[in-house]
Amino acid sequence: MNSENFSLSEKIVSSSYIRQGSQARRSHEQLIRHLLEQGKCPEEGWSESTVELFLNELAVMDSNNFLGNCGVGEREGRVASSLVARRHYRLIHGIGRSGDIAAIQPKAAGSSLLNKLTNSVALDILKLSGVRSVASCFVVPMATGMSLTLCFLTLRHRRPKARYIIWPRIDQKSCFKAMITAGFEPRKIEELGADNVLCVHSTTSCFAPRVPDRLEELATMCAKYNIPHIVNNAYGVQSSKCMHLIQQGARVGRIDAFVQSLDKNFMVPVGGAIIAGFDEPFIQEISKMYPGRASASPSLDVLITLLTLGASGYKKLLSERKEIYSFLAQELKSLASAHGERLLHTPHNPISLAMSLDGLQAESDKAVTHLGSMLFTRQVSGARVIPLGKEQTISGHTFRGFMSHSEEYPCPYLNAASAVGITRDDVTLCIKRLDKCLKTLKKDGNAAKSKFCFGNTLGSSAR
Amino acid sequence: MNSENFSLSEKIVSSSYIRQGSQARRSHEQLIRHLLEQGKCPEEGWSESTVELFLNELAVMDSNNFLGNCGVGEREGRVASSLVARRHYRLIHGIGRSGDIAAIQPKAAGSSLLNKLTNSVALDILKLSGVRSVASCFVVPMATGMSLTLCFLTLRHRRPKARYIIWPRIDQKSCFKAMITAGFEPRKIEELGADNVLCVHSTTSCFAPRVPDRLEELATMCAKYNIPHIVNNAYGVQSSKCMHLIQQGARVGRIDAFVQSLDKNFMVPVGGAIIAGFDEPFIQEISKMYPGRASASPSLDVLITLLTLGASGYKKLLSERKEIYSFLAQELKSLASAHGERLLHTPHNPISLAMSLDGLQAESDKAVTHLGSMLFTRQVSGARVIPLGKEQTISGHTFRGFMSHSEEYPCPYLNAASAVGITRDDVTLCIKRLDKCLKTLKKDGNAAKSKFCFGNTLGSSAR
Amino acid sequence: MNSENFSLSEKIVSSSYIRQGSQARRSHEQLIRHLLEQGKCPEEGWSESTVELFLNELAVMDSNNFLGNCGVGEREGRVASSLVARRHYRLIHGIGRSGDIAAIQPKAAGSSLLNKLTNSVALDILKLSGVRSVASCFVVPMATGMSLTLCFLTLRHRRPKARYIIWPRIDQKSCFKAMITAGFEPRKIEELGADNVLCVHSTTSCFAPRVPDRLEELATMCAKYNIPHIVNNAYGVQSSKCMHLIQQGARVGRIDAFVQSLDKNFMVPVGGAIIAGFDEPFIQEISKMYPGRASASPSLDVLITLLTLGASGYKKLLSERKEIYSFLAQELKSLASAHGERLLHTPHNPISLAMSLDGLQAESDKAVTHLGSMLFTRQVSGARVIPLGKEQTISGHTFRGFMSHSEEYPCPYLNAASAVGITRDDVTLCIKRLDKCLKTLKKDGNAAKSKFCFGNTLGSSAR
Amino acid sequence: MNSENFSLSEKIVSSSYIRQGSQARRSHEQLIRHLLEQGKCPEEGWSESTVELFLNELAVMDSNNFLGNCGVGEREGRVASSLVARRHYRLIHGIGRSGDIAAIQPKAAGSSLLNKLTNSVALDILKLSGVRSVASCFVVPMATGMSLTLCFLTLRHRRPKARYIIWPRIDQKSCFKAMITAGFEPRKIEELGADNVLCVHSTTSCFAPRVPDRLEELATMCAKYNIPHIVNNAYGVQSSKCMHLIQQGARVGRIDAFVQSLDKNFMVPVGGAIIAGFDEPFIQEISKMYPGRASASPSLDVLITLLTLGASGYKKLLSERKEIYSFLAQELKSLASAHGERLLHTPHNPISLAMSLDGLQAESDKAVTHLGSMLFTRQVSGARVIPLGKEQTISGHTFRGFMSHSEEYPCPYLNAASAVGITRDDVTLCIKRLDKCLKTLKKDGNAAKSKFCFGNTLGSSAR
Repeated sequence: MNSENFSLSEKIVSSSYIRQGSQARRSHEQLIRHLLEQGKCPEEGWSESTVELFLNELAVMDSNNFLGNCGVGEREGRVASSLVARRHYRLIHGIGRSGDIAAIQPKAAGSSLLNKLTNSVALDILKLSGVRSVASCFVVPMATGMSLTLCFLTLRHRRPKARYIIWPRIDQKSCFKAMITAGFEPRKIEELGADNVLCVHSTTSCFAPRVPDRLEELATMCAKYNIPHIVNNAYGVQSSKCMHLIQQGARVGRIDAFVQSLDKNFMVPVGGAIIAGFDEPFIQEISKMYPGRASASPSLDVLITLLTLGASGYKKLLSERKEIYSFLAQELKSLASAHGERLLHTPHNPISLAMSLDGLQAESDKAVTHLGSMLFTRQVSGARVIPLGKEQTISGHTFRGFMSHSEEYPCPYLNAASAVGITRDDVTLCIKRLDKCLKTLKKDGNAAKSKFCFGNTLGSSAR
Repeated sequence: MNSENFSLSEKIVSSSYIRQGSQARRSHEQLIRHLLEQGKCPEEGWSESTVELFLNELAVMDSNNFLGNCGVGEREGRVASSLVARRHYRLIHGIGRSGDIAAIQPKAAGSSLLNKLTNSVALDILKLSGVRSVASCFVVPMATGMSLTLCFLTLRHRRPKARYIIWPRIDQKSCFKAMITAGFEPRKIEELGADNVLCVHSTTSCFAPRVPDRLEELATMCAKYNIPHIVNNAYGVQSSKCMHLIQQGARVGRIDAFVQSLDKNFMVPVGGAIIAGFDEPFIQEISKMYPGRASASPSLDVLITLLTLGASGYKKLLSERKEIYSFLAQELKSLASAHGERLLHTPHNPISLAMSLDGLQAESDKAVTHLGSMLFTRQVSGARVIPLGKEQTISGHTFRGFMSHSEEYPCPYLNAASAVGITRDDVTLCIKRLDKCLKTLKKDGNAAKSKFCFGNTLGSSAR
Repeated sequence: MNSENFSLSEKIVSSSYIRQGSQARRSHEQLIRHLLEQGKCPEEGWSESTVELFLNELAVMDSNNFLGNCGVGEREGRVASSLVARRHYRLIHGIGRSGDIAAIQPKAAGSSLLNKLTNSVALDILKLSGVRSVASCFVVPMATGMSLTLCFLTLRHRRPKARYIIWPRIDQKSCFKAMITAGFEPRKIEELGADNVLCVHSTTSCFAPRVPDRLEELATMCAKYNIPHIVNNAYGVQSSKCMHLIQQGARVGRIDAFVQSLDKNFMVPVGGAIIAGFDEPFIQEISKMYPGRASASPSLDVLITLLTLGASGYKKLLSERKEIYSFLAQELKSLASAHGERLLHTPHNPISLAMSLDGLQAESDKAVTHLGSMLFTRQVSGARVIPLGKEQTISGHTFRGFMSHSEEYPCPYLNAASAVGITRDDVTLCIKRLDKCLKTLKKDGNAAKSKFCFGNTLGSSAR
Repeated sequence: MNSENFSLSEKIVSSSYIRQGSQARRSHEQLIRHLLEQGKCPEEGWSESTVELFLNELAVMDSNNFLGNCGVGEREGRVASSLVARRHYRLIHGIGRSGDIAAIQPKAAGSSLLNKLTNSVALDILKLSGVRSVASCFVVPMATGMSLTLCFLTLRHRRPKARYIIWPRIDQKSCFKAMITAGFEPRKIEELGADNVLCVHSTTSCFAPRVPDRLEELATMCAKYNIPHIVNNAYGVQSSKCMHLIQQGARVGRIDAFVQSLDKNFMVPVGGAIIAGFDEPFIQEISKMYPGRASASPSLDVLITLLTLGASGYKKLLSERKEIYSFLAQELKSLASAHGERLLHTPHNPISLAMSLDGLQAESDKAVTHLGSMLFTRQVSGARVIPLGKEQTISGHTFRGFMSHSEEYPCPYLNAASAVGITRDDVTLCIKRLDKCLKTLKKDGNAAKSKFCFGNTLGSSAR
C-alpha cells in the first residue's frame, strides 16, 4: 500500500500498529531495492512472501493487468484459463520482442524487468560458481541442445564458408544433434582447413569414465588457429572443477560461448539454458539471432529459485553435492569390491562415477541389461547401465560402443552421479538396492533373468 | 482413492454416502477415459477440479514424485523451490528426450502422456478450426519465429544445395529473422533456379492493409516446381478464412508445414507454437530435429486451456471474435468518417483493420507518431500507428516503408485487430480514446505536440 | 514497489514503460483507498489480482511476516505447513483479542484491518439488501445456531431472572438447540410473566409451507412488553422480503439483533454468521461476550467474495435468484399438476416452495421416503421429502409432525428452494429427475420399492 | 486414475512406464489406507503431494463437486469466488449437522470423513503427548475461551442449580470471560455449597511466575465432592509436564474435560480448539451442545499439519521446544545478572519464564512500560512487560495486580516463553535486543523516555 493508504488505515487501526506494518513493508522493499540496484543474487535467500510480493508487483506493471487497458492488437496477453494465469503469476507476455530475446517490451514493463534481472542474477551466479571473468549471459527457454544450435547458427553468419565442427566425441544424442540440426558435420581437425571449421565444440560435464575435455589446450589451439570455441557445460555450473576449466580456458585461450542447462544446475523444470560468454557483443549477437518472443517460464523459475536460495543457499547446495560425491565414490567402491568389481578410476570427472560390471558380463550376455531393468523397477533412477559394444546411428552417423564415448571400451559398467540436490538417503538407498539386485542376479543365474527382463531397449536406457 | 480405500471409508462414514462419493469420482474418471480413448478435445469443457485431478494423476506417475525413488543421475527432476514445483503441478521432467521432442521419457510417464495428449488435442482443434485434412502436429516450446527456423533447418537436410527462400514480403521482424537465423537469403523466385530454393515461405494472418497470401496459387506453383512450402499461420487458427486457405492450398497443391502461435490463438502465455502438416513423416522429421528435451510449460498451458474451454467453448470464442471484428470495422469506419479519414478497404484480411491518417499527416510531420504515444499513455494497447516511409535494416537487409509491407504505401495509417478474447468493451473504449486523441491533436495543433511526445521510437512501436 | 524502486527500475527498463507500470499500480491503490475511506463494498467488483494484492499487503503488516521479527510469546502466528500458510494468505493471527472479537491486535495490524473492513463491508451489504437503518454488525466465525446462542447469553446478563424464550415453532434443530444450549426453555408467551422471558426468538427464512413470522406484530409486541427480540434471519439476506420485514419490524417496534448465515447468503464455506442490530452498544456487548480470539477464515472468505462481486455483482445474483424462484414455482406447478399433485399455496415464503405428495402417500406408506432416497442417489440435492407424522425428540422436547413446523400438517410434501447461486439448469435438471422418479414409483408400484430403498433414516433426510 | 484409465494410457505411453506410474500411485493409496484403517497420525509425515491428493479425493466426494449434481436446497455449497473455493480445496460444506458438530452430512461424505479423521488423529496426538488414557475428543472451530464456555453450558444442563465456578485465579481475560459468558460467577470454594458449584476450572499452561495448578489435588477434591472439573490446557499439549498433570489428575481423581488451543499447540492459524475427556458420552454431549454446522477450516488446517509433520515430526518439534526452553532460561539468567536483575524461580512452569525488572522500576515509574513499547518497535513480539499494581475490571469484576495472577506481586517483571516452533535465533535476537533496550533505558535516563513512549496502553500490552 502507498503512504496515503497507510494513513487511511491509521484511522481504522491504531496508528502505532499501522506504522509498524508500514515499516515491515519497507523491509521487503529494501530487499527489492538491493536487487534492482545491484542486479545480483541476494546473499541471503528471500522468504516466499517477499518473492511473491515482488512477482505480483512485476505483474501489475504488464499491460494485460492494467485495470483500464483496452487491447486491439493481435497479442494482448489475454488468458482463457484462470489456472494458467495464476501459475504464471499473471505474467503472460513472455520475454523479448521480434528480433531480440533480450529486448524490452513496451506492453510489458514487468516482464521486461523480470527478463533483465534474471539475466543479471544468472551472470552473478556464474561468477560466484567460478567463471569470474564472464562478461554477459542470457537465459533462453530452450534446453542445452537447441541453445548450442543457436550458437552454431550465429557463428555461421560470421564464417559463411565453414562446414565442419571439431568435436571430441561425447555420447549424448542432443550434443550431436545440436550440430546436425544447425547443418554441420562433426569432423576431426587434421582433415580440415581452418577456414572450413565453424568451431570447436567441447564438453565439460559428462558421464564417467569420460572426463571433461582439456579446455586449456583446446582454447589455446582455438586462439592460435583463430577458430571459435563453444563449450557444452551442460551440468557443469554445479562443479567448481568444470567452472575452473572454463575460466582458465578463457584466460589462456579462446572460448566464445559456454552453454549450461537450467534444470540440471539450478533444480528447476526442464526447458531452459544459459548462454554465456566473455565478449558481450557476441552474446548479444546470439540473443538477437533468436527470432521472436519467447517463454518467460524458465526465467521465472530460475529467478524464483535463486532469490529463494540466495547465494549462500546455492553455495551450500554445491558444497553438499561435493561431499556426497565423495560419499558416493566410497560407497560404490565398497560395493564394487564386495561383488568382485571395481570403481573405475576417473579422478577428473567431478560428478559422475562408474563401476565395472565384468563379473555380471561373465555370467551371461543378458545379465548387464537385465540389471538396468531391475534398477528401473526398483525406482533407482539415473543409474545407467552401459553394455559392451552397443551400436547407434544418429542422423546417418553410426557410433560404435555408444554411450561409452569410445569405440572399444574394455568393460561394461554402471554410472551413478552426485548432482546438485542429491541427498545421502539417495545414495544409501541406491547402494542397498543395487547390492540386492547384484546378489539376486548372481544367485538365481539364468533362471531368474527371463522373468524380470523387459528387453534391451528399456534395460539399457533406464535413466 | 481406490476401491479398498472407499471400503475402509464406509466404516467411518455411512456407506450410502461413500458409495455416492465413489460414484462421483467415477464421473471424473469417465471424462479422463474419454480423453485417453479419443485423444480429442472434449466437447464440453472440464471443471477446474477435473483438470487439476487429472494433472495431479499425471504428476504422480513421474519418477521425481515417486515416494520411494532414489535418484543418482544428473537430471532427476529435483526442485529447490516449492513455489516452482507447485506452479508446474510437480511435472518437472519436461517433454521429449535427447534427439526427439516427441519421444517418451522412461523417467516421466506422466509428462510423456501429457505431451502425447496435448499434441493429439491440438491436432483435433486444428481440424475443428478448418484444416480438416491435417495429418500430424506437435507443440513446441518456442515462439512462431524459432519454430519456422526449425522447419527451415529440417528442409536444409533434404535440399543441401538450396540457398534461397521465396518470401512474399511481410514486415514483421521475426518472420524475416527466422530465415536469416536458419542461414538463408530471401529472394524473388524469377532470379533463381528451383534447386537453389529451399522453400516458399508464405503468410496468412498479417496486419492490414496487407492481406493473406494467395495460398492456393502458391501451393499449386510449389507442387509444379517441386518446391517445399512452409506457411506462417501465426494467428490464423482463430480465423476460419485463414484455416480455409491452408486446407485449400493443401488440397490443390503443396504445403509441407504450417506454424501457428499458441499465445495468439489459444489465450495462453507467450512462448509456444504448433508445427503441423499433411505428411506425418515430415512433421516427425522436424520433431526429431529439435535436439534435446524441452519445456513442458507451453504444452501444459494449452492442454489446461483446451480442456477447460472444451471444443464448444473454443468455438464460441471464435464466433465472438468474428462478430466483434464486424463491430470494430463498423466503429472504425464511423470514427474515420467523423475525422475525415477512411477505413482502408481490406476485405480479405479477417482479423486486422486499418484506418488512414492522411489528415493527421497533413497537420504536421510529427502528429502521426505523436498519436502512437498518446494511445500508449492512455492504455490503448495493440493499436499500431504506421508513419510514412520508415526505413529499417534487419540483419543487413534494408526495408523501405517498413511496417507497411510495401516500399511506397501511399498513406500513414492506424491498425486495430479483433483477436480471440477481445470484448466489446475493448472496442468501445478504444474508439472513445482514439476519438479523444484525434480531437486533441487537431485542436491543439503543434503547441500540444512537444508536451506529450515521447519521441519516435516509442511512438511508432506503441504496441 | 515504492517510488524509490520504480526509479531504480527506470535504469533497467525504459522509463516511459516503467512510469506506465507505476501508474497502473496506482489504479489498484485507488481501489484500496476507496475501500479504506468509505468502508463500503465497491460498486464494481475487483479483479482477483487487486484482491490478492490487497491481501498480501495486509499479511505483510502482521508480525508473523515481519522479516526481522523474533517471537518469544506463546502465540506467535508460527505455521508448520506451508500449505496452510498459503491458503490463509499468511494471515495467521485470527481476529479479536481475549475478551472482544472486534478488538485490534497489536501483533497483527493487517488482520485487524481485515476484521474491521469486513464488518464494515458486511454492514454496507445489509443496508443495500434492505435493512437500511441497521447500525452495527460483526462477522463471527460460528454458524447461525451458535451465534444465536451468543445473543441469548448476552441477554442473560441483562435479564438475570429470565428463564423462557418465546419461539414461534420452526422445525430446524439448530434453532431449537441454540436456546437449549444457552440454558433456556422455549415457551408460549401467555403462560409466562414478561420478566421471566429472556426474549422473543422469531424467524424469517424457513422451509415452506411455513412462512416468515409476522415481524411487525412481534416487534410491536416486544416494544410494548419491553421484551428483547432476536431474529433468526438465516438465509434471509438474499430475499428483499425478509430484509424488508426486519427493516419494518425495527421501524415500528423492537428488534435487538438479527443473525444471518454467511454461507447461505454469500456463497462462502459453512461456518460464519453476521450478528447485526440497530443499537450499536448492544451489538458491541455481544461481540465482547465472545471470549478470546477467533478464526479469521470466515471473515476472509466473505471479504474476498464481496470485493470480487462488488455491490453490483451481488445485486445481480439476488435478482437472478428472484427470477429463478418464479421459474421454479412455475415448473413445480406444471409437474405437480401432471402428477395429480399441487404446489402448496405459500405466497409469503420468498425462497422455499412445497409440492404435495398425496398421491404418492396413497400408493404406499414407504413411497414418500423412498422418493427421498431416489432423489439422493440421482444427485438431486436439497430436495427435502417430508413424510406425515414424523416424531423427533431434541434435548428432551418431543416434536410431533417434525420438519413440517406443525403438529398435524395435512399432507406429505417435497421442498425445493431458489437460493442465491442457483441456476436455471439446476431447476430444469431437478424437475426432469423428479418427474422420472415419480413415474418410476407409480409404474413399478411396490415391486420396485424394496429394491431402491435405503431405509427411513436416509430417505427422510436426503438433503 | 482407475485401472481402466491406466490400461488406456498403456496404448499411448510404453506399458512398462505406465505400470510403474500406476505402482507409484498405489504407494500414495497405501498411506491413505493406513490412515483410514488406523485413524492415527502417520509416524512419518506425508509429502505435500500425498496430502493434496488426499484432500482432492475428499472434495470429489462432496455433492457441491458432483459433476451431475443439481441443487435445490438452501445450502448447496455453492461458491461465488474461485479464490475462496481453491483455498478450501473445494471443501465447502463445513462439518457437522444441525444439532451435532460431529455428525455425518449426507451431502458431504468427503467433509464428513475429514471431520472424523481429524478428530481421530487429534486423539492419537493427545495420547502421544502424554494423556495416554484420553477416551474421546473433537476439534471445534472456536478458540479456547468459547470452547470452555461450551463445556460450562453443557454442565449447566447436568447441574441446573449451580451458580458458581471455582477458579484458581489466572489473569487472562478469555479464561475469565468464558465463565462470565456462560452465565456463572467465579468464587472461592469455601464460601459455597457443593451443589451450587458448577465445576472447578483449573489451568495448566500459564505465564510465569504463575505455575500450573496442582491438578492431582484438585482432581482428587473434585472426585471427593462430586464436582465436575474442567481443565484449561490452552498451550499445554506442547509440554509433557502439563500433559502428565492431566493424565495423573484423571488417574487419581476427576477431570471431565480438558481444552486446548489448536494454534498454540499445532502451529496453525488462530481459531480452533480440541475438547477432550476421559468419558466418551460426556464429550459427545458437549459436541451435541454445539447447535448447527461449523467451519471445517480449523480441522482442515490441523489435519494438513499433522499429516505433513507425522508423529515423528511433531515429537521432534516438542523436543526442540524443550531444549530451547533451557537455552532461553540460561540466556535470560545471564542477561538478568548482567543488569542486576534475576530470573524468577518458577521451576514448575515448563514454558514461560519471568525476569525481574526491579532496577528499572527503581529508575522511574515509566521505565517499565517504556520497555514494553521499545521491545514492540524493535519487533520483539510476545515479550510481556508486567508493571506493578495494574488494575483491570472485566465484566464488573476488578482484578488488582492484573496480569501477575496475584493481588500484590512484589516486583515488576518481563515474560518470555519457549513455545512450539520457536528457534534459537528467536532467543538470540530477543536477548540481544532486550540487552540493548535495557542499556538505553539506563543510559538515557528520563530524557529518552518521552521520545519513545507510546503511552501506557500499548506499553503494557505489547504482545
